[in-house]
This record gives sequence, C-alpha cells and structure tokens, in this order.
Amino acid sequence: MSKGDKVVILDFWASPFCGRVKIALEEKGVEYGQSEEDIFGGKSELLLKSNPIHQKVPVLLHNDKPVVESSIIVGYIDETWPSNPLLPTCAYGRAQAKFWADFIDKKVFETGRSIWANNGEEREVGTRDFIEVLKQLEEALGEKDYFGGDAFGFVDIIAIPHTAWFLAYERLGGFKVEEQTPKLSAWIKRSLQRKSVAKVLPDPEKVYQFVLHFRKMEGLD
Amino acid sequence: MSKGDKVVILDFWASPFCGRVKIALEEKGVEYGQSEEDIFGGKSELLLKSNPIHQKVPVLLHNDKPVVESSIIVGYIDETWPSNPLLPTCAYGRAQAKFWADFIDKKVFETGRSIWANNGEEREVGTRDFIEVLKQLEEALGEKDYFGGDAFGFVDIIAIPHTAWFLAYERLGGFKVEEQTPKLSAWIKRSLQRKSVAKVLPDPEKVYQFVLHFRKMEGLD
Repeated sequence: MSKGDKVVILDFWASPFCGRVKIALEEKGVEYGQSEEDIFGGKSELLLKSNPIHQKVPVLLHNDKPVVESSIIVGYIDETWPSNPLLPTCAYGRAQAKFWADFIDKKVFETGRSIWANNGEEREVGTRDFIEVLKQLEEALGEKDYFGGDAFGFVDIIAIPHTAWFLAYERLGGFKVEEQTPKLSAWIKRSLQRKSVAKVLPDPEKVYQFVLHFRKMEGLD
Repeated sequence: MSKGDKVVILDFWASPFCGRVKIALEEKGVEYGQSEEDIFGGKSELLLKSNPIHQKVPVLLHNDKPVVESSIIVGYIDETWPSNPLLPTCAYGRAQAKFWADFIDKKVFETGRSIWANNGEEREVGTRDFIEVLKQLEEALGEKDYFGGDAFGFVDIIAIPHTAWFLAYERLGGFKVEEQTPKLSAWIKRSLQRKSVAKVLPDPEKVYQFVLHFRKMEGLD
C-alpha cells in the first residue's frame, strides 16, 4: 500500500465494533480519519451509501472503497498492511482465531445487552449468561498472556473493546468480572497497557453514563 | 498437504452447513470420510468432544484436529489445499466475499426457518422476509454467472446448499423462487450442473419430507 492511501472510519465512539477497527489500524501504524456518526440524529448519507445492507458502523473507507463488518475489516487490514501480522500464519491457527472471533461476535455484546436492556428476572438471567460467556473466554485464554499466545493479536483486538462496557454490566448486573474470571481480568489490564488499546478505548464511566441515558430513552429507568 | 491426510466430516445429510464443507472438499479433490450424526438419537461423543462450545455439525477432523463453523471450515480448506482457489486473490475481493458469506449465514436459514417453523401470520411475515433476502442476494449476483464473477467460488459454496431447502419453503410459504428472483433461480440451475454440487446436495423432496416430520414432532401440524 502506498503512503498516499486515504483511510477513513465511519465511527461511533462507544461502539466496541468500531474500537476493533481503530485498534487494528493503530497496531499497523496506519494513519486514519474518523467521521463520527450521530446515532440519535439519524444516519449519514455516506453510511447509508457505504453499507446499504446493514446500515451500521463501522465502515472502513479505503481510498473511498467501503469495507464493512468489523471482524471482516480487521482481517482486511491484516491482509492489506501485512507487517506486524495479527492472525497466526498457519491455517489451523487462523481457523482457531476465527472461531473465537465468531464466538465473541455472537455472544459478548448480546449477553451484555441482556443485562443492561432488561430489569428484574430477565436481567438476572442475562447476568448469568454473560458470566458463563466470560468463563468460556477465560478457558480459551488459559495460562497464556494473550488469546493467540505471547503476542497481542486478532482475537485480542476483537475482544478488548467490549471490555469498556464491562463497568456498566457490573454495576447493572451486580457482579465483578475480577471475582468471576481473574485471569480474564488480568488479560484486560495487560491489554490496556498497550498503546493502541489505551488510545482507542473509551472511558468505561462515560460508557456507563451512555448506557444509563439509553435506558432512560427506552423507558427502562 | 500430504496424500496420507485423514479427513473426516461429522455430518448430517440435510444440513446446508455440512453441504458447504462437502462441496469445498469435492472442489479441491480431497478424499474424505463422513460420520453421520443421528440428530434425533443424541449427539455422538466425538461431536461433543470436537465442538464442545456449540455442539453442532459440521466438524472437519483433519488428521484428528477439529475445525468448526462451516464458513471457517471452507476458508480453512481453501488455505490448506491451495489449488483451485475459492476466495478471490485480492484483499478487497476477499472482504466482499466474506461479507456476502456472513450475510447468508445470518439471514438465509433463519428467514427460511421463520417460514417452516411457523403457521398463520408469523409464517406470512417469514415468507416476506425470506423473499426480501432472496432479492438482496439476486442484486448481489447481478448479471454475473456466479457471485464472484465467471467462476464458481466461495460465496456460491456458502449459498448453494441452502437451495435444497427452497422447495420446502416454497410449498409452505406459497411462492415460487423462480417468479420472485429469476436470475437467482438461473444461478441455482447453473450451479446444480456442477459435479461437486450435484453429488453433495440432497433431494429437495426428501428435505421437504424431513421438514414435515420435524413440524409434526414440534406439534406444528
């Protein structure tokens, strides 16, 4: 890729899915612009044109060509800027990494949502489901520093932006991630020391306030 | 990969997800064994051990190492047996192919299920949703012979096994795929002429009878 590449993200600050794309670009040392979507004020023309099927952020515009779906974008970034590879080099390792990325895609945000978008018994069920997902992730991490081994990589990038929402889940669900899954908690702290992650992740307190605002709008509080 | 590779699929004959894996192996000329799961008789020990998280077919056992999730397996097969590539060679084309594979993963079976697993108004809504998905796929196909262009490839392999269920959807939903989406219908006929597809896809009439059996078990008829 030439130095003259134009890279822009259609972004939303609290979105863990947008966070993945920004961390991947930071890891690759790619300069990028951000165009913040106003999720309460209606979707931009550029978003509707770039992602007509799902109409969701993030969109990566690479020399004006759109790439969508955050896990696919991170894979595209890894292939387009091959230095500092994020995915393992062997086919089996890549399949394993994609399995966990897919697991995170299907489970983490949805079970988290079942905590903050509910009350009463439904929230209790959601909290149990979320903690179960955390335990499955902790088992996948095992004794390793990162999901892929010694180096921060693809699965870490897919997972870590979700953790900016964990404070909201903890407060609304009445539990502590550190007590439930201490090794996963240590992985979060380790990852937060990385420059790319520290730069990109929003303040969990600000995410919590955003969640409370959303709950009010939905008539949940 | 050496000639001595041992390749086995944990399979279920009617599963469109298993169909993808078998077509990909046929396209690559890889010899494989099939171990049929008895979905009404309980999951095999091998399935539970190989896919402890989702406990679902297909599983590809490559020299006894499990790979799971059908789209990930097809990608693994493409990387492991690189002759006759299924995915485009450029990163942008690969991202586009993965987008449509993901769209098919999220939409086709689920909207199809909303036809056959419902009655009355819910089924009518399901039928409308399913036809909408077909139209989006037809637009993605455009005037091309296959989703990737002139050659049968990744997205075709992800999509085509679902079409063995279309007869069941048509009969229960009261519509004709050919009338709704004639170009997509032509793509189905074109793909069925391919040896790999013709060999792998189950008889749609047999799938329809299976769906009726399932409906009876669920108390829907």
